[in-house]
Amino acid sequence: MVGVNQKKIRVAMIGYQFMGKAHSHAYRDLPFYFDVPLKPELKVVVGRNEEGVKEAQEKMGFESYETDWRKVIERDDIDVVDIVTPNHTHAEIAIAAAEAGKHVITEKPLALTVEDAKRMHAAVEKNGVKHLTCYNYRYVPAVQFAKKLIMEGKIGKIYHFRANYLQDFIVDPNFPLVWRLKKDVSGSGALGDIGAHSIDLARFLVGEITEVTSMMQTFIKERPIGEMTSGLSAKGSATEKGEVTVDDAVAFLARFESGTFGTFEATRFATGNRNKNKFEINGEKGAIRWDMENMNNIEVYFHDDPEGLQGFRLINCTEEIHPYTGAYWPAGHIIGYEHTFIHLIDEFFRGIAGDKQTSPNFDDGVKNQIILDAVEKSANEKRWIEIK
Amino acid sequence: MVGVNQKKIRVAMIGYQFMGKAHSHAYRDLPFYFDVPLKPELKVVVGRNEEGVKEAQEKMGFESYETDWRKVIERDDIDVVDIVTPNHTHAEIAIAAAEAGKHVITEKPLALTVEDAKRMHAAVEKNGVKHLTCYNYRYVPAVQFAKKLIMEGKIGKIYHFRANYLQDFIVDPNFPLVWRLKKDVSGSGALGDIGAHSIDLARFLVGEITEVTSMMQTFIKERPIGEMTSGLSAKGSATEKGEVTVDDAVAFLARFESGTFGTFEATRFATGNRNKNKFEINGEKGAIRWDMENMNNIEVYFHDDPEGLQGFRLINCTEEIHPYTGAYWPAGHIIGYEHTFIHLIDEFFRGIAGDKQTSPNFDDGVKNQIILDAVEKSANEKRWIEIK
Amino acid sequence: MVGVNQKKIRVAMIGYQFMGKAHSHAYRDLPFYFDVPLKPELKVVVGRNEEGVKEAQEKMGFESYETDWRKVIERDDIDVVDIVTPNHTHAEIAIAAAEAGKHVITEKPLALTVEDAKRMHAAVEKNGVKHLTCYNYRYVPAVQFAKKLIMEGKIGKIYHFRANYLQDFIVDPNFPLVWRLKKDVSGSGALGDIGAHSIDLARFLVGEITEVTSMMQTFIKERPIGEMTSGLSAKGSATEKGEVTVDDAVAFLARFESGTFGTFEATRFATGNRNKNKFEINGEKGAIRWDMENMNNIEVYFHDDPEGLQGFRLINCTEEIHPYTGAYWPAGHIIGYEHTFIHLIDEFFRGIAGDKQTSPNFDDGVKNQIILDAVEKSANEKRWIEIK
Amino acid sequence: MVGVNQKKIRVAMIGYQFMGKAHSHAYRDLPFYFDVPLKPELKVVVGRNEEGVKEAQEKMGFESYETDWRKVIERDDIDVVDIVTPNHTHAEIAIAAAEAGKHVITEKPLALTVEDAKRMHAAVEKNGVKHLTCYNYRYVPAVQFAKKLIMEGKIGKIYHFRANYLQDFIVDPNFPLVWRLKKDVSGSGALGDIGAHSIDLARFLVGEITEVTSMMQTFIKERPIGEMTSGLSAKGSATEKGEVTVDDAVAFLARFESGTFGTFEATRFATGNRNKNKFEINGEKGAIRWDMENMNNIEVYFHDDPEGLQGFRLINCTEEIHPYTGAYWPAGHIIGYEHTFIHLIDEFFRGIAGDKQTSPNFDDGVKNQIILDAVEKSANEKRWIEIK
Repeated sequence: MVGVNQKKIRVAMIGYQFMGKAHSHAYRDLPFYFDVPLKPELKVVVGRNEEGVKEAQEKMGFESYETDWRKVIERDDIDVVDIVTPNHTHAEIAIAAAEAGKHVITEKPLALTVEDAKRMHAAVEKNGVKHLTCYNYRYVPAVQFAKKLIMEGKIGKIYHFRANYLQDFIVDPNFPLVWRLKKDVSGSGALGDIGAHSIDLARFLVGEITEVTSMMQTFIKERPIGEMTSGLSAKGSATEKGEVTVDDAVAFLARFESGTFGTFEATRFATGNRNKNKFEINGEKGAIRWDMENMNNIEVYFHDDPEGLQGFRLINCTEEIHPYTGAYWPAGHIIGYEHTFIHLIDEFFRGIAGDKQTSPNFDDGVKNQIILDAVEKSANEKRWIEIK
Repeated sequence: MVGVNQKKIRVAMIGYQFMGKAHSHAYRDLPFYFDVPLKPELKVVVGRNEEGVKEAQEKMGFESYETDWRKVIERDDIDVVDIVTPNHTHAEIAIAAAEAGKHVITEKPLALTVEDAKRMHAAVEKNGVKHLTCYNYRYVPAVQFAKKLIMEGKIGKIYHFRANYLQDFIVDPNFPLVWRLKKDVSGSGALGDIGAHSIDLARFLVGEITEVTSMMQTFIKERPIGEMTSGLSAKGSATEKGEVTVDDAVAFLARFESGTFGTFEATRFATGNRNKNKFEINGEKGAIRWDMENMNNIEVYFHDDPEGLQGFRLINCTEEIHPYTGAYWPAGHIIGYEHTFIHLIDEFFRGIAGDKQTSPNFDDGVKNQIILDAVEKSANEKRWIEIK
Repeated sequence: MVGVNQKKIRVAMIGYQFMGKAHSHAYRDLPFYFDVPLKPELKVVVGRNEEGVKEAQEKMGFESYETDWRKVIERDDIDVVDIVTPNHTHAEIAIAAAEAGKHVITEKPLALTVEDAKRMHAAVEKNGVKHLTCYNYRYVPAVQFAKKLIMEGKIGKIYHFRANYLQDFIVDPNFPLVWRLKKDVSGSGALGDIGAHSIDLARFLVGEITEVTSMMQTFIKERPIGEMTSGLSAKGSATEKGEVTVDDAVAFLARFESGTFGTFEATRFATGNRNKNKFEINGEKGAIRWDMENMNNIEVYFHDDPEGLQGFRLINCTEEIHPYTGAYWPAGHIIGYEHTFIHLIDEFFRGIAGDKQTSPNFDDGVKNQIILDAVEKSANEKRWIEIK
Repeated sequence: MVGVNQKKIRVAMIGYQFMGKAHSHAYRDLPFYFDVPLKPELKVVVGRNEEGVKEAQEKMGFESYETDWRKVIERDDIDVVDIVTPNHTHAEIAIAAAEAGKHVITEKPLALTVEDAKRMHAAVEKNGVKHLTCYNYRYVPAVQFAKKLIMEGKIGKIYHFRANYLQDFIVDPNFPLVWRLKKDVSGSGALGDIGAHSIDLARFLVGEITEVTSMMQTFIKERPIGEMTSGLSAKGSATEKGEVTVDDAVAFLARFESGTFGTFEATRFATGNRNKNKFEINGEKGAIRWDMENMNNIEVYFHDDPEGLQGFRLINCTEEIHPYTGAYWPAGHIIGYEHTFIHLIDEFFRGIAGDKQTSPNFDDGVKNQIILDAVEKSANEKRWIEIK
């Protein structure tokens, strides 16, 4: 409940495209659903294009806008800097924000390189600010519930983790060369954009990966040069073509510290799959299946159910007992994608209020980056790479 | 986009439970997602319990609260009165609001009786105000898309409409005697609470019903007397029991003007089903299936697909081309229950801005009530009842 | 195992179309999978068309064929007469067979009228022969398993039985006027052909129905006059048209002795559904869902599962512990439609070997017919009909 | 139709466990459903255990039995030798049969080593006999239909092939050390037993694999010494333990000649999955999904479907137009696992009748073995292995 003594937390957001919309919506709805210790105030949104950022400011409900992020990073009236810009800009902004003593939120992947990610982590640690890397899928209620079942020992030792993140938005050869397809801006393709999410879910649910062998592929090597939009719905019209410098698809085999046998695939060429982010876990006592396209559901199997009555249960995680969903609607009334960000930021702000560092944070961002790096190296060198 | 000349629309909401939360969230998020001609201002929320309504006011973001709805109905600074109180109070408030010249939103069912519903309709018509009855499931994007397919002739003549609305929240005999189980407050049980939604979907998608034969049942006739909460999650502790005066389950057969053969069932005793609101339409050219628990999806079948390739297509209605969803996230990123209210109110406010009466309105509320009435009469008299 | 002392049971089959194929396959495979006390010997198949019946004899593995059923009914070397002819011929043949002292198998529905069905039942009882009415869906392993769960009290008092049998094979107006569409041959349309199966499942799983109210409809009233084939894949070419004298669709509401609230729908106009024979049962302790198109699976829900872990379990009934399936393949290797007849006949022959009358028998056939009759009467007279 | 001039094909079957049952059932049912040029005569079944083989002979309908396969291989009255014994015996029997001029059927995998497989292939080629390796899943109607769609260009260039074959029958650590868990008898574990099926489906649908990198794991390294049963349902009781010498799980990444990006996983530790043999194909024009647990269905997606109407179609491949299913039941009446063997042998016998070599044959067996070999080598040497 928004009490009289409730404190504010003042936010500057750098960038305003797809992720900017998701984050600003989360700030808007967070205090509506949850009793928050800190109520977000949307102070300023930053973008290079004045027309665009002005429109975003009005729509998203920020008090003001700026075109130069450096101007806002030092402002006294900002507590949190939220970075939703293309990947190649994360490091510079995040480090500057940390040095200015701001808590820092950064979209994933944390950086283009492990080195940058580590510098970012060092900066937030040195400056004693809280940090968040937005691996939002951890915060789907069904995924949190999966974690709870695993922690309670209901699944037992995990034999298998099997993740697929399948999209198809660039199957059309005329889809333009957006920033997500350029290595110098995005770092990698399917790997860092969606594979990184599967890696985070694996780390969250199963633990650390110790080695990988991988394969990457770019099916369409040249594309029309289009506008640098946010990347998921751009339409190319130019006749000029440019080189695609990232992977369209990646797959890798992984071993975990836990002895788990892991398989991963991430692709933007899985025709028919718009956003099929799914995993299956098989353990000695049970199994779990989840799929983002039916994000409210989880399928759970218990080996100890009576003979003849064993089967995957389809559980709609919308009951009061399920994580977060008590704050919403009666059982059976589903929630959508945007709620993952509400939960992610709820957790982060509670951490700030209680002076605790929550997860996923920059350390998670670094560890994820190390795996991304190893996967890419493995594909290039065609050999297993150990993760240290 | 919130432009400089954007006008405001000032809202008073009477009641603040389950539906109050859904409506106030819709007001909050509407301008975030959509370019609205009128931006809602949440002026005042009304409730009899001062502590409760104060808490609601803060949480939901209203400027103020009141404990007497009569005080707000006449206020100059109110454009819309939104009534989310228990059913037996709808008529009095709505008529008063209409007579005060306010646009009126009323939750469904519109009233306890056809007579009340008609008086309400007459009042809004006489006073020239716009009116909305909140049959929100029409505004699921997948349902709007179903309507579009039907309108375009893609399904052809409709042979069958088959609706089930299955819940199980009162299967436990110790679930208390909440207001939804008392005829003098709610009008009816499963019939008016959830069956009414199926009827509205039928009218929206297929057209008018001409006659019905029905059966109603109350499986558990006495329940512990509990608190008058919003009704979906109350827990009874009292040892005293009171009589359940509404139906636990209802089913009816219906004929439509279109010649369609209709079957309906609504129940709160369908163990295992939290909120399974579903329908299937079979027509000469195709078929449609939809289910609220997977509300973003629609299954569509075309009789003219090539032999061997005929099958229900599972379409995730989250693409730019689907109704409303272009305002949200990239394809494959689902939305939830609360969005139905955003769309419902978006449509209503656009109507007000453009001086057009939208649907579902009080006329729909009356027609729905006439059918509810006929269904109940048919069950009582054990005979077919014609709908005039 | 076929031991040295294994006895034979000698079969004459009257008719050889769709059901003849299903029955003769069952005779063929029964001793392969099961240790049978009586091994079927296929003595003779009967049909009026000599060319057709000769072809059937060779294909199905009968020793001989005949064109006049009267010639075989009295033969000393026949133990069982299996009647798979169109419905209007059942009574005469079955009564003659019973009077000749043969055990009698009759396809469903047992007869065209309750009177005929009762005469048939009287004849088998008087002559002390065993009898079977082929409501084969009882013998799907998953359905038998459902029955077992109900008998063990795992579902508790049954509140709801909800059955749909949806087909679409006559949606095309040019589908010809086959015998299944003529009342004098088939008795009724969707009602007796497929609705009768739902009624049998209801009686098997829930118990007796006490009253019904119904609605029937013939969407396409005239069709091309085609050949009198077995009816499911005939193609009409004639320009002459004849009247469809049976129902295309039927729906009814039913009350059971058990207090269960029943809804039924059977139709041949459910575009997109080839053979969707399904039911859902909701009880005080649990729920069951089943669908013939996924006949090996059953979905089971237990109300007493721990909070948060409640959900329908998808059980693939192919394990050793499930009814009949131990005789087949390892778990997860599904069986198909034809196995229902193997189990049905296995049970019947075991009954004969042990001098026990099994189910479903002519008594079930009569009771089913009484319900069919009541449903039709209710539709004609537009009122509730009690079942005595 | 079994015509007067129909010829016979006389079969000797070596072995009689799980696969023996599947094959002998296929011989039994083949002429019932299909018009065959050669009608199988089951002459003799061979097994070392006299009691067991005698029982099998009677149950499966063979004319006689033998305990020494060498005695039957040379018999003049045998046309086909069908080898369903454990893998380590395939080579010797098959070569002897070929040299005796018999057509040879061998269960998969063809042999324990590539060398053996090649010797077998050389033997059948040299002796001019027809040969079959029983990769039966090719002959699921839905899989044949998938092949047809691919051949017709409906899927376009194939970007992805993604196969999982998931079982869980040995998750229990007390499951005994059956022959399938001993390398000297079975050759490998999940790899050769089930992974080999995925490889065959990949070769059938997509083409040849050019290189692989893999990972194998044995989760439970010692098991109770049990009886050498057929392996899928044995129960161990011994307290003595022996070493598991095969893989419990294997995964590999693969590149195809076609440029397709392939991922494979086969495991017996996928708790909750009894026999989940599935694949997904994503191509430039469409996509296909299939899963053996719902073997009659195929999901097909077409990229060129109108915008908004794109989605996977669930096609029940039981219509007359679908491969093989016209021989069975009306649309919507599903078939089961055993039918795959009927189709496989139907095709083989038609080949013999027409003097054509059909697929999958020993050449397919050799190519499959080369891939199995490469996968195992890759896992052992932790590097990519090229397939020559």
